[in-house]
Amino acid sequence: MITPQLLNPASIALVGASNDVSKPGGKVLYNILKHGYKGELYGVNPKEQQVQGVPCFATCDELPEIDLAIVAIAANQVEAALRSLAYYKNCKAFILFSAGFSEAGEAGKMLEQRCVQIVEKTGGTLIGPNCIGVITGNYKGVFAGPVPAYDPMGCDCVSASGATMVYLLESAIPRGLKFRDIFSVGNSAQVGVEDVLQYWDETYDPAYSSSIKLLYMEQIADPARFLKHARSLVNKGCRIAAIKAGNTEAGSRAVSSHTGALAGSDAAVSALFRKAGIIRCYSRIELVYVAAIFTIKPLQGNRIAVITHAGGPGVMLTDILVKGGMEVPPITGPKADELLAKLYPGSSVSNPIDFLATGNAQQLGEILDYVDNEFDDIDGAVVVFGTTGMWRVDDVYQVLHEKIKTCRKPIFPILPSAIQAAEEVSHFHTMGHVNFTDEVSFGYVLTRVNKLQLPYPDAQLPAEDADLIREVIRRNTAGYLQPDEVTALLRAAGIPTAGQATANTQEEAIVAANRLGFPLVMKVVGPVHKSDVGGVVLGIESEAEVTANYKQLMGIAGAEAVLLQQQLSGIEVYMGAKAEPPFGKLILCGLGGIFVEVFKDVSAALSPVHPDEAARMIRRLRSYPIIQGARGKAGVNEELLVQTILKLSALLEAAPEIIEMDINPLLGNPDVLVAVDARILIEK
Amino acid sequence: MITPQLLNPASIALVGASNDVSKPGGKVLYNILKHGYKGELYGVNPKEQQVQGVPCFATCDELPEIDLAIVAIAANQVEAALRSLAYYKNCKAFILFSAGFSEAGEAGKMLEQRCVQIVEKTGGTLIGPNCIGVITGNYKGVFAGPVPAYDPMGCDCVSASGATMVYLLESAIPRGLKFRDIFSVGNSAQVGVEDVLQYWDETYDPAYSSSIKLLYMEQIADPARFLKHARSLVNKGCRIAAIKAGNTEAGSRAVSSHTGALAGSDAAVSALFRKAGIIRCYSRIELVYVAAIFTIKPLQGNRIAVITHAGGPGVMLTDILVKGGMEVPPITGPKADELLAKLYPGSSVSNPIDFLATGNAQQLGEILDYVDNEFDDIDGAVVVFGTTGMWRVDDVYQVLHEKIKTCRKPIFPILPSAIQAAEEVSHFHTMGHVNFTDEVSFGYVLTRVNKLQLPYPDAQLPAEDADLIREVIRRNTAGYLQPDEVTALLRAAGIPTAGQATANTQEEAIVAANRLGFPLVMKVVGPVHKSDVGGVVLGIESEAEVTANYKQLMGIAGAEAVLLQQQLSGIEVYMGAKAEPPFGKLILCGLGGIFVEVFKDVSAALSPVHPDEAARMIRRLRSYPIIQGARGKAGVNEELLVQTILKLSALLEAAPEIIEMDINPLLGNPDVLVAVDARILIEK
Repeated sequence: MITPQLLNPASIALVGASNDVSKPGGKVLYNILKHGYKGELYGVNPKEQQVQGVPCFATCDELPEIDLAIVAIAANQVEAALRSLAYYKNCKAFILFSAGFSEAGEAGKMLEQRCVQIVEKTGGTLIGPNCIGVITGNYKGVFAGPVPAYDPMGCDCVSASGATMVYLLESAIPRGLKFRDIFSVGNSAQVGVEDVLQYWDETYDPAYSSSIKLLYMEQIADPARFLKHARSLVNKGCRIAAIKAGNTEAGSRAVSSHTGALAGSDAAVSALFRKAGIIRCYSRIELVYVAAIFTIKPLQGNRIAVITHAGGPGVMLTDILVKGGMEVPPITGPKADELLAKLYPGSSVSNPIDFLATGNAQQLGEILDYVDNEFDDIDGAVVVFGTTGMWRVDDVYQVLHEKIKTCRKPIFPILPSAIQAAEEVSHFHTMGHVNFTDEVSFGYVLTRVNKLQLPYPDAQLPAEDADLIREVIRRNTAGYLQPDEVTALLRAAGIPTAGQATANTQEEAIVAANRLGFPLVMKVVGPVHKSDVGGVVLGIESEAEVTANYKQLMGIAGAEAVLLQQQLSGIEVYMGAKAEPPFGKLILCGLGGIFVEVFKDVSAALSPVHPDEAARMIRRLRSYPIIQGARGKAGVNEELLVQTILKLSALLEAAPEIIEMDINPLLGNPDVLVAVDARILIEK
Repeated sequence: MITPQLLNPASIALVGASNDVSKPGGKVLYNILKHGYKGELYGVNPKEQQVQGVPCFATCDELPEIDLAIVAIAANQVEAALRSLAYYKNCKAFILFSAGFSEAGEAGKMLEQRCVQIVEKTGGTLIGPNCIGVITGNYKGVFAGPVPAYDPMGCDCVSASGATMVYLLESAIPRGLKFRDIFSVGNSAQVGVEDVLQYWDETYDPAYSSSIKLLYMEQIADPARFLKHARSLVNKGCRIAAIKAGNTEAGSRAVSSHTGALAGSDAAVSALFRKAGIIRCYSRIELVYVAAIFTIKPLQGNRIAVITHAGGPGVMLTDILVKGGMEVPPITGPKADELLAKLYPGSSVSNPIDFLATGNAQQLGEILDYVDNEFDDIDGAVVVFGTTGMWRVDDVYQVLHEKIKTCRKPIFPILPSAIQAAEEVSHFHTMGHVNFTDEVSFGYVLTRVNKLQLPYPDAQLPAEDADLIREVIRRNTAGYLQPDEVTALLRAAGIPTAGQATANTQEEAIVAANRLGFPLVMKVVGPVHKSDVGGVVLGIESEAEVTANYKQLMGIAGAEAVLLQQQLSGIEVYMGAKAEPPFGKLILCGLGGIFVEVFKDVSAALSPVHPDEAARMIRRLRSYPIIQGARGKAGVNEELLVQTILKLSALLEAAPEIIEMDINPLLGNPDVLVAVDARILIEK
């Protein structure tokens, strides 16, 4: 819960206030004073009566009532200070810089919990501990980092790492990115990323709120709440970019020693972001480029005009855009010829539009007008314009400024002369614009942003026979289900299965074989990885083969029975599900065999899966051309794949006890999709 | 040919000299004067008698003898100036800034050729036209860009794009990268990238030459010479990074229409770079990061200690290193405990080594000493250290400076505080170091640099029966070879083929079938894409089936005969070759079928292929686990794959008339690799 006092305090107490700006309690006060906080300010420091011109008290007990306390004292003194402030000073907001809490071991964790309890008892908000602070329109409560000028339409940020926030600003400010509210949530003892998202969501007003949200996280403690508010914000018109670090084993180890958090499944994080319509970033610089692209009106297509006075960068940019699936289409025709005539001899308008090193501001204006008004198969422009260093380029950037404001199509400015045109670029920023310095980094990020999908709505997934599903779950104990139970669950979910029977004797096997019809597959029951122990025999054509193979399969260690199945033909499809706490169930699909096991070509989505989400899962597969029918061979019915993913998801929703499940393979062709083998693990 | 007068001129004439530094002829003179050129300087300008304090003549004819002329006049005046200088002034080096030559159409192209002829007639060197100039230890002959301080051990550069060179410097200088000789070769009328490489190679002296070479190219006109000198330089201890962008003339649209191809010229460029031991970059910033890594002693392994006072960046860096195949191994044991005791409470040494926001210079020194001396399973360290902005970090960077100098293991400095620690970072640069600003960009590039292989030596590849190969080529006309001729070529190359026979009648088919033995494959002869027209029938087991299928296959449009082959089993392998002028023949290999056609999982190398290169081709495949034997199934004999690639390469060397060739499939298992189907296209 974020209290109004955190956002808009009428009074702030600095506990641990200092005259020394090389200390957090000095620097934060300096920042608050410098950036014109209008409310009451008090310090707490037993050694001072005034700090940086602000009245200072020896203890918290001496303070008047206070809205917000910023606490920068040793961990072992924090609890007493909080108690005094919360219980006696009506303080409803706390920012705790101090380290030495849950990130420092068990005792720190307990101390942290006690602090949260004190704050919650009186309905307050606690930010941190182990954070660099908060910036709002009201005050600049941070002790670290360059303090960006406050822009009411700038990016809103929340970060679980203070250093990442600081270094993000270090990368962002030189590119003209503006900022609004910043929350460094540190250990997230009470307020985490989810709470900040919820606050942004619940207070969102298109006229007054920023539409760009940037997140850095090392854990997502409450994915359901995260999804709810992130999705809601995106649906209201926000654009969200997020880093979730700790996505490898070594990275998870780093996370746990950094903030004590559990990193969680990387595939689940990506699936969550896709569901919420969030773009996932992996570095500060990528986050900065994405945020800068977010400040420019969205592209309504993927056809780009590359406009430059510098050939090489234009070529590299064109390469990366095309590699990322965008188009740099040829520009030809009478209007192109007309434009060409307005440029210096030797220029080219065929796209890239290269108006030479001598190209000037007026020509850039002409080019942008033609792109905006005359070239209908162009959706936006990228302008690469630096300087040789021989003359200033203020006039060019002035034209860029005007055209970005007035053109219907988005214009992305790449201004590479960080040294020689530093002043002009800086002035361009003051006119409200961002710039990109490296054309290829920009192009890569643009292709990613342009592929971003809107969030998937919540899916309603009624299972075909929920009663039967519950019945099967009820009558089984925890562990792997027997083949008949697996079949029952699949059928109850509406997933077709191959005709099959379990035989406990040779005679039963022959009876079943004749009932199912040849050709047949025979599989050992018992061992989990049947193929690895030679427990699967294909192409059984006669009673004699049934007899021989029954004996052989029952000789395998762990054999309990033999399963006989119709041998169907088609493309092997894999589907599966896995509990990924706290994210819920991850639904997986791909083509079977080597595609899953060698190429790791698997798509994932969090259950419940929306139909559009299922369709995207399939189309995202690298093996999708095989599903479509490659090399003159029949593919797999895409609609049946989608329906089966949805039925699988519905099964998981009806039977949350299923913690792991594989249908491997299903056999698919243009007409049918049938489960041939499956295993299901339940937990109770 | 690069003359000594270009590198070390005793006199320079500026043709088109100006007092106006916003003109090329003014700015280049300004740069030459400012950076202390010691030789004779003259201007040529009919309107001036002195330019920027330098004596000026009305025409070139009035000049004394001159070593180097820098020409900055309109294209239509250039030829006369060159004639005067080359024929009458003994001028042996020309830098031609002027545009309006081959890039501007046919007339410009002819003018350019005449200029080259004038220069070559007297044994001179021509740089450009359409370039920004040259920087050597002797003079700074450039009109554009920030002029870097000259460092005799700095990076040597050559660029086919002046703007790319300028913007590369704009990105490189703020990261502390130092530069030595710079060649902007423009249109490469006479001197191209190959010539500059040759010059660097032939004059290389480890004591006096820079070991870092950076290239930007849009074409490689002479790949053989490029390879020769690049490989030689790398073998002498140089490290080369290069961007090869799409062709400006055809535009990158040409590149995009080739993206779907198996092996366009882009694959040839990558193959050439691999053969030469060059790292391929795709952006200016990547080139800068690679160059900066090259300035630091090479890693002797892939195990990294991540050292930081900032948790989040440490986590992101760890993630990207591990994803790129490097290790951030846990650090434990008594020595780790000993180090931990020297750090502030709450620090972690388990890797990342996190010594907290309060960590200081002395602690960093301790950590680096432990990494260098005590932690044997660590090969190098990355230090991420910025500032909160509360204190200066000069002492920390001083320690970094000392440890980079003295430690045996490489140390990579990531200094993210571009704003707040700008002065300290700048001072760090003056001590001779580079820095990286974004930890993830750095980590990605480090994993690429660490995978770089040494060049492959030239391979000696005697074909098994060169006489027979020549005989087959001689007796065939251009076009696709008949099956028997294909078989003869494969056998002459030593590539085993499946037993087979061509039948022109039903009776011949039956005789052949009985000779080859069942099971058989029958294929239509005539149509090129047999599978697509139903022209391949597998599993023929009897004379009756031979009869039936013969009739059916001969009914296919274009059918000329029927081929019968032993039906072998194994994994389908694809090999091929393609003429890629001017690069020569590109040899391709991968697994057959969908792996080639859907996943585009193909490795390429330029012929002649070295055995180590062939081995790497195989291991680079995404489907390599299948070759090794995945999922309990037999794989393909790797040594036979290597040998067959070499035999294919030998065939191409012996028969350069082959311009396209596919062996698809070969069937392979742990014991044999046999060509089952192949087509060969020759050109005469």
